[in-house]
Amino acid sequence: MNKIYTGKTKDVYEIDEKNVLLKFKDDVTGKDGVFDPGENQVGLQIEGAGRSAVAMTKFFYEKLNAMGLNTHYVSANVDKNEAVVKKAKVFGQGVEVIVRYRAVGSFIRRYGSYIESGTKIPPYVEVTLKDDDKNDPLITKDALAILNIMTEEEYEELAKLALQIGEVVKNELAKKELELYDIKFEFGMVDGKVALIDEISGGNMRAYKGEEYIEPLKLEKIMLG
Amino acid sequence: MNKIYTGKTKDVYEIDEKNVLLKFKDDVTGKDGVFDPGENQVGLQIEGAGRSAVAMTKFFYEKLNAMGLNTHYVSANVDKNEAVVKKAKVFGQGVEVIVRYRAVGSFIRRYGSYIESGTKIPPYVEVTLKDDDKNDPLITKDALAILNIMTEEEYEELAKLALQIGEVVKNELAKKELELYDIKFEFGMVDGKVALIDEISGGNMRAYKGEEYIEPLKLEKIMLG
Repeated sequence: MNKIYTGKTKDVYEIDEKNVLLKFKDDVTGKDGVFDPGENQVGLQIEGAGRSAVAMTKFFYEKLNAMGLNTHYVSANVDKNEAVVKKAKVFGQGVEVIVRYRAVGSFIRRYGSYIESGTKIPPYVEVTLKDDDKNDPLITKDALAILNIMTEEEYEELAKLALQIGEVVKNELAKKELELYDIKFEFGMVDGKVALIDEISGGNMRAYKGEEYIEPLKLEKIMLG
Repeated sequence: MNKIYTGKTKDVYEIDEKNVLLKFKDDVTGKDGVFDPGENQVGLQIEGAGRSAVAMTKFFYEKLNAMGLNTHYVSANVDKNEAVVKKAKVFGQGVEVIVRYRAVGSFIRRYGSYIESGTKIPPYVEVTLKDDDKNDPLITKDALAILNIMTEEEYEELAKLALQIGEVVKNELAKKELELYDIKFEFGMVDGKVALIDEISGGNMRAYKGEEYIEPLKLEKIMLG
């Protein structure tokens, strides 16, 4: 298989015209040795991180597919750190979609003059551009349309889907008495429709048990162990 | 009169319960001695800048008031560098509203991977928070509502008014064969309605004659001289 992309936390191989293989690595994003899903750089390696991410991805995506929500997911092999997904066309050079339930992370870095860190907020969706050099800038629905990254209709579809999927993840965590503070998704076009792509794992979300932040590997153990 | 606010380019004095006096200074925003309406710091002093800003403000606001567009403007005395305006309640700790016709400045700093500097775009409105420490972060309609800075209805009203007022300024400049690239407004609530506040001057906009950027003082001479 041809490797067609080398990512920060996974590599992508071409299977055929319609499908690609995601090979998960043990690298996670963070800074100065501390995990941070909002960071752009690979900050540390955690043994088992790849396997954990595939297991979580399989768990959540099978639920989403069963619910009829649009995703790129086909199947996964947890023991091989692999997932098969449909090919997707990303928006522009790629966008990230964050759903927030508490004001933390970059929300506080931007708006900390208006709200205390950790405050509960109504479910809130925002889109940032994947652009490491520019620190993943926030972008509005209007600017996405002007820059031909996505139409207003695609934005509305994406925001609705992000809220629905966020709710599924939030509810699954709640079953284990965990609280989802925020989660970062990627979306693209799959078979002509807006669909969730990439992984869903501890590395994409902030989960808390009471006051305690739950690290990705521990989160997977609580969720699936 | 009591001074109630010391600003970067003007000071504010209380006249009575309903009105305040704006006293314009010769300071303009910029960096390293170069004027930049997007900058937060006072970069340089230009003799006559205050007078010029009052003259432009008077010129544009009298037009806007005559058109029935909501503003805080009452009157101005150009020779005294002063304007009388109605008291306004700012949104949160103050917001800035940018209307863009060409992709320049912070739009390029954020989205330069998607569009070449100087490209014409459909009229586009964006809101940033006045927060020097956080570099005036961009904020979406949804986040403005969540943070209780303005309601969605107030946002819609503000965006519509900003586009209308931007069009007035753009057309006035066009009469002198100048092109407006972008303009920065402030809005607040005046008498319970969304209204334009603060000055309209060369210091708030980027005006070009062909390829040549027109400095604020020169712009005023072309417009009013």
